[in-house]
Amino acid sequence: MKNFEFYNPVRIIFGKGQISKIDEHVPGGSKVLLVYGGGSIKRNGVYGQVINALGKRKVFEFGGIQPNPKYEAIMPAVEIIDREGVDFIMAVGGGSVVDAVKFIAAASHYQGNDPWEILSDKGEVKSAVPFGVVLTLPATGSEMNGNSVISRQSTNEKLAFSSPLVLPVFSVLDPEVTYSLPMNQVINGVIDAYVHIIEQYLTYPSDAVIQDRYAESLLQILRNEGPRAYKLKVPEYDNRETIMWAATNALNHFLSMGVTTDWATHQIGHELTALHGLDHAVTLAIVLPGLLDSVKEKRKEKLVQYAERTWGLSGFDHLAVAEEAIRRTENFFECMGVKTHLSDYGIGRETIDKIIERLTARGVEYLGNAGDVPLENVRGILESRL
Amino acid sequence: MKNFEFYNPVRIIFGKGQISKIDEHVPGGSKVLLVYGGGSIKRNGVYGQVINALGKRKVFEFGGIQPNPKYEAIMPAVEIIDREGVDFIMAVGGGSVVDAVKFIAAASHYQGNDPWEILSDKGEVKSAVPFGVVLTLPATGSEMNGNSVISRQSTNEKLAFSSPLVLPVFSVLDPEVTYSLPMNQVINGVIDAYVHIIEQYLTYPSDAVIQDRYAESLLQILRNEGPRAYKLKVPEYDNRETIMWAATNALNHFLSMGVTTDWATHQIGHELTALHGLDHAVTLAIVLPGLLDSVKEKRKEKLVQYAERTWGLSGFDHLAVAEEAIRRTENFFECMGVKTHLSDYGIGRETIDKIIERLTARGVEYLGNAGDVPLENVRGILESRL
Repeated sequence: MKNFEFYNPVRIIFGKGQISKIDEHVPGGSKVLLVYGGGSIKRNGVYGQVINALGKRKVFEFGGIQPNPKYEAIMPAVEIIDREGVDFIMAVGGGSVVDAVKFIAAASHYQGNDPWEILSDKGEVKSAVPFGVVLTLPATGSEMNGNSVISRQSTNEKLAFSSPLVLPVFSVLDPEVTYSLPMNQVINGVIDAYVHIIEQYLTYPSDAVIQDRYAESLLQILRNEGPRAYKLKVPEYDNRETIMWAATNALNHFLSMGVTTDWATHQIGHELTALHGLDHAVTLAIVLPGLLDSVKEKRKEKLVQYAERTWGLSGFDHLAVAEEAIRRTENFFECMGVKTHLSDYGIGRETIDKIIERLTARGVEYLGNAGDVPLENVRGILESRL
Repeated sequence: MKNFEFYNPVRIIFGKGQISKIDEHVPGGSKVLLVYGGGSIKRNGVYGQVINALGKRKVFEFGGIQPNPKYEAIMPAVEIIDREGVDFIMAVGGGSVVDAVKFIAAASHYQGNDPWEILSDKGEVKSAVPFGVVLTLPATGSEMNGNSVISRQSTNEKLAFSSPLVLPVFSVLDPEVTYSLPMNQVINGVIDAYVHIIEQYLTYPSDAVIQDRYAESLLQILRNEGPRAYKLKVPEYDNRETIMWAATNALNHFLSMGVTTDWATHQIGHELTALHGLDHAVTLAIVLPGLLDSVKEKRKEKLVQYAERTWGLSGFDHLAVAEEAIRRTENFFECMGVKTHLSDYGIGRETIDKIIERLTARGVEYLGNAGDVPLENVRGILESRL
């Protein structure tokens, strides 16, 4: 393995009926800003549980966070924090709400000219408002990491930042909260988690024997539980708890220790979301098979390990084994009702031109971190997904 | 799974040449107490690296910590801390040094009558001196958990305590530091880690799908790397790094989330160490096969899962499959040169009588946490290991 540091102090509070525990972990007397999304938490009872648990603390609210949260839409929360002296934030929602809260928390303490610099110029995060999470949608792993992705409407950009200062103080994961989710959101979460694991695991050998086996465990578990969730008529607790815990473990800094990670699939996927508003997970399901095809020679060793250990494939022709694993991965997405070609979403060649243009304008030469996805390959990757 | 909380803020600093990094994580201007064992760190260069990294900080020393650290021997460190105003401790050693430092850290701030109460009466730990670790012997996982086991010479007792306040601030894990260890200590570490995993995994089904797969991963990895380490004439980095990281992950509170754990093997093993001074890992290798035999009917479901998934066994006769897995486990210990019967160490029936007597005097009715090892079974377990 490469040398690494691991630091993840997020307190996970997992299980049925655990939302009431936030009372133990939000400082008494805090002024709390409650941040949430489109209001589903008011219909499924989560809002009431959170308000009850916060008790006599002064609570301000900032609802309406959208998927792929926009800078323009969330900056007003920073004003509320300043004006009201808010000293703790509660994020109640899925990855978009948590990511938005991370940016709001860092922006509130930002000393530079414009908080957008945190995203565009890696402006240093020196402190942030502490926050807790009640997770309603397992997918992004944001509840147990220090990463955030924010979009900007005015420029059609979608950018990420990362800081240990925006690790949640605690995250409550109650699997029953997911029962009221539409099935496509549950499946999107499974795909998002699956691709997170792939992007940390399926690169180059690095003797990270434990991280490899853990990644292979999670991949197989998601392939069992995702289609099971899709078929079940009534949600089952053991299925939902496993999906929820797997999504957290897919991106809690554990699998990436000491290894070469990728993230090129995410980078290309973000462009599709920015241009067409496609669900994040859908963009990953479209891009991943094409990306893996483009690196199948270079990443053959790890692709064969993936094929053998998680799909039970074997054969003398390693390239054929790798290709079969890529096809099965694509089928796994499709079997949960997610289409994996651009044409399924009415997207054609002109979008490919536009993406190349945008990446070129930003001076991108290589995508991701693995050094094997040069810009000139992006056209081929996307054309293979038409 | 049962509901659970997970909280592990230990910063892991892993890899070659990482000891110098402690300078970044020990507060500047601290008065540091450097605690270590028998002095091997002065021969293998670790002592010098630590002193260099601590730079101009005022350093006091407390060496000579023995395996199975004794209350009587470590209490003088508490006096040094009081007298000199020490505000940070550096534990440089294996699990015994780290466990000793945890007790010293808690005892220094203890407000009750006698710090021994922390162990004997679960006296509450309300604060502790912060400390960091440079690990020299991978085995106990103490570098990434809040557990400690301390012995008392005057009463021949060996007792444990646990508190989040004695989680290390950081732990440096440099696999090269283990190159100078005697082979029996390396193998003891492998066995200790293996049994830690078994005692969290091999109990009763609890739908902890991820923890199960992670445990099975670690068990297989230790079975590959332990015998490899034993055979290698010259230490290899990838082998030692995997053993080191596996031992940490074997007991960092991750595998025990939401499951029924056991620890009866440890409890019986502690008696053997207290009475005969046997290496901790050796006692586990002796006791575990007998203990598993005694619960093979009750724990059949999990034993068969262990047999199938980690040993590749199968068969219609589930009890026979379980028994074969237990025999193979015993052989795994033996193949690394560790004898697994009491007679191999000159221990006879009189010790069994003595152990029953001691446990009875302490009012023990059941051993461990799983509720399936009543005191009356301990004689049979130990007799099967004569």
